[in-house]
Amino acid sequence: MSPPAMTVITLTTDFGTSDGYVGAMKGVILGIAPFVQLVDLTHEIAAQDVRGAEYALVSAAAFFPIGTVHLAVVDPGVGSQRRPLLVTTPRASYVGPDNGLFTFALEEAGALVFWLDRSEFWLPHISRTFHGRDIFAPVAAHLARGVVPHALGSPISDPVRLPQVAPYRRTDGQVIGHIVHVDRFGNLITDIAERWVGEGRWCVELAGRHISQFGTTYADVMAGAQVILVSSAGTLEIATRDGNAAVQLGVGVGEPVILRPVA
Amino acid sequence: MSPPAMTVITLTTDFGTSDGYVGAMKGVILGIAPFVQLVDLTHEIAAQDVRGAEYALVSAAAFFPIGTVHLAVVDPGVGSQRRPLLVTTPRASYVGPDNGLFTFALEEAGALVFWLDRSEFWLPHISRTFHGRDIFAPVAAHLARGVVPHALGSPISDPVRLPQVAPYRRTDGQVIGHIVHVDRFGNLITDIAERWVGEGRWCVELAGRHISQFGTTYADVMAGAQVILVSSAGTLEIATRDGNAAVQLGVGVGEPVILRPVA
Amino acid sequence: MSPPAMTVITLTTDFGTSDGYVGAMKGVILGIAPFVQLVDLTHEIAAQDVRGAEYALVSAAAFFPIGTVHLAVVDPGVGSQRRPLLVTTPRASYVGPDNGLFTFALEEAGALVFWLDRSEFWLPHISRTFHGRDIFAPVAAHLARGVVPHALGSPISDPVRLPQVAPYRRTDGQVIGHIVHVDRFGNLITDIAERWVGEGRWCVELAGRHISQFGTTYADVMAGAQVILVSSAGTLEIATRDGNAAVQLGVGVGEPVILRPVA
Repeated sequence: MSPPAMTVITLTTDFGTSDGYVGAMKGVILGIAPFVQLVDLTHEIAAQDVRGAEYALVSAAAFFPIGTVHLAVVDPGVGSQRRPLLVTTPRASYVGPDNGLFTFALEEAGALVFWLDRSEFWLPHISRTFHGRDIFAPVAAHLARGVVPHALGSPISDPVRLPQVAPYRRTDGQVIGHIVHVDRFGNLITDIAERWVGEGRWCVELAGRHISQFGTTYADVMAGAQVILVSSAGTLEIATRDGNAAVQLGVGVGEPVILRPVA
Repeated sequence: MSPPAMTVITLTTDFGTSDGYVGAMKGVILGIAPFVQLVDLTHEIAAQDVRGAEYALVSAAAFFPIGTVHLAVVDPGVGSQRRPLLVTTPRASYVGPDNGLFTFALEEAGALVFWLDRSEFWLPHISRTFHGRDIFAPVAAHLARGVVPHALGSPISDPVRLPQVAPYRRTDGQVIGHIVHVDRFGNLITDIAERWVGEGRWCVELAGRHISQFGTTYADVMAGAQVILVSSAGTLEIATRDGNAAVQLGVGVGEPVILRPVA
Repeated sequence: MSPPAMTVITLTTDFGTSDGYVGAMKGVILGIAPFVQLVDLTHEIAAQDVRGAEYALVSAAAFFPIGTVHLAVVDPGVGSQRRPLLVTTPRASYVGPDNGLFTFALEEAGALVFWLDRSEFWLPHISRTFHGRDIFAPVAAHLARGVVPHALGSPISDPVRLPQVAPYRRTDGQVIGHIVHVDRFGNLITDIAERWVGEGRWCVELAGRHISQFGTTYADVMAGAQVILVSSAGTLEIATRDGNAAVQLGVGVGEPVILRPVA
């Protein structure tokens, strides 16, 4: 006999792990859906950094099994008029505030969006400051138990989207992108997909510096040297071997990255 | 066929997450009760802060399903004569040292207390410095498997209780309470329940400042301004919109909070 | 009916918990083996500190049930020629890079070592910088599902081992050991097993200081005083009651510890 399925629910918040907030959300989930796999993506999103949370979801969501429920709560507008939201795609469901957190999922073919307006699937008492526990956690648990999206809310077509700043190629052949993430090691992840780099030679201009050493691994350069490689997300990454590129170059998320053909 | 139940065991410690201590406790639990849901409340309680751990438990425990086992180890007296303890209530069980960690649970109707003195439910070798792994983890796992409390220990009636400092109303109508928690965002959670605020107008005096703006959400005031609202625990909370009230006001846990009627 | 078994997979990395890296690994595992217990040992190993990761594994692994799969990724050589490795012992399996992480397991009787060279058990696309997600996570999941080691790789006999610095007794009777771990509380864990301390009286020389107070618990000395006791790992430990011995003495991992007989 094969064991019963265990739906995965991931959690992404800016709550940190020193308070009992995340624990309370998990308690609510397990009271409704005792038979799930709970996975923390991260609770260390910078306070109210919606874009940072979106990046964490983008990086990890593709690696979860079909049917996973992603619960994300970075919610500067909690208690205000912002809507609670459910986005479903053919691969996964996303539950959280309507503030752009799920912009990437809205772009997927087959994405549907629901305003979570059916309070019979929430906790009986709704606080003004903790919808993660009172609304989003119970809805995610009901989804994991098989409640259909249409029962949980009403279809809408105007969810909030974060403005997307995609990299582009200028007429002089240079590609203009940005740093979209700095990881724990200080590696700088850009939004420039590997395919932008065609044949020929390229260098990267970043914060007034020129970096021309491409590599396939960190070990391709000497300690302390910078290397351009393909990140685990499939985009260009600037790293310092055995060092912290973000500190060394003094840059962070949003910094422009210019990819320039070398004559 | 419905899946079998999975008892929830929560863990609350001051061990941090950089050592393997918490992992070892979970290994012990899963060796005895492979079929449980393990949930970390927090491992970032300040070293030996028994009251902080009690607060984390109070905040989260009510949201877990009936039958949950809460394992908490903040244990300055490990290896000394302090007793290992089990508290059972109609909702949950609590396993940890007898130092006041579970004071709130002792107040619940139907609470029973057991001195864990049956070493056949412990690990074979008991270290002097890590009862969390050697005594509390195996006992929690046996509870989750259905071993009854009376098999694990002897009923007692004199557990250690933390002195409780409840808010009170002075004859001049002022309510005197305290800050009982500062969360990751610097929000100041008090012990003054919402019901203390009756009709009429009130202001809060805190660290020599007067705060009179009540709101229902953080968004009710301008960025940088202080607002009094109802916390997710149902008590008064002082927050700074898009800021850190604890830093701004220079206050922490224990600071008196005076709720004063405004003429 | 007893519930089906749930194999335990532990995770140990230097990835931290602020990025989605660990989450992506768990997603990969749950897509292959939905019915496992995932346990984080720690993700706060210092960047590229292979020895620190080995210590975390040594401390915790013995407390996990037989059949546990330990996945560890501290991998300075990711993308280079270093081999992906599987070590099996009668108690557990270990999956990670061939850089000495599993030296302790290689010493166990019955240990077998496999070079993970069967890419049909990996993700279809292998990045150059994240073998934890692309190779080690799927292999650990297939192991948990019951795939045999010989299907996953080829037996080898030359895995990388970390040089072991064991304590030794000099002809003058002094025992020379080292600090091998500093825990969150600043307690100093040595590699000197309790059995080195025979009858008679001893003192510890550490960073030019002499400590002669042995105790069985932290409570055996006054606040601020140093005490030598037996750690939860069964080795000598130097602690400061209600204080941080590492800060107080200004020492860290690698510091020599001399155990000296007192006349």
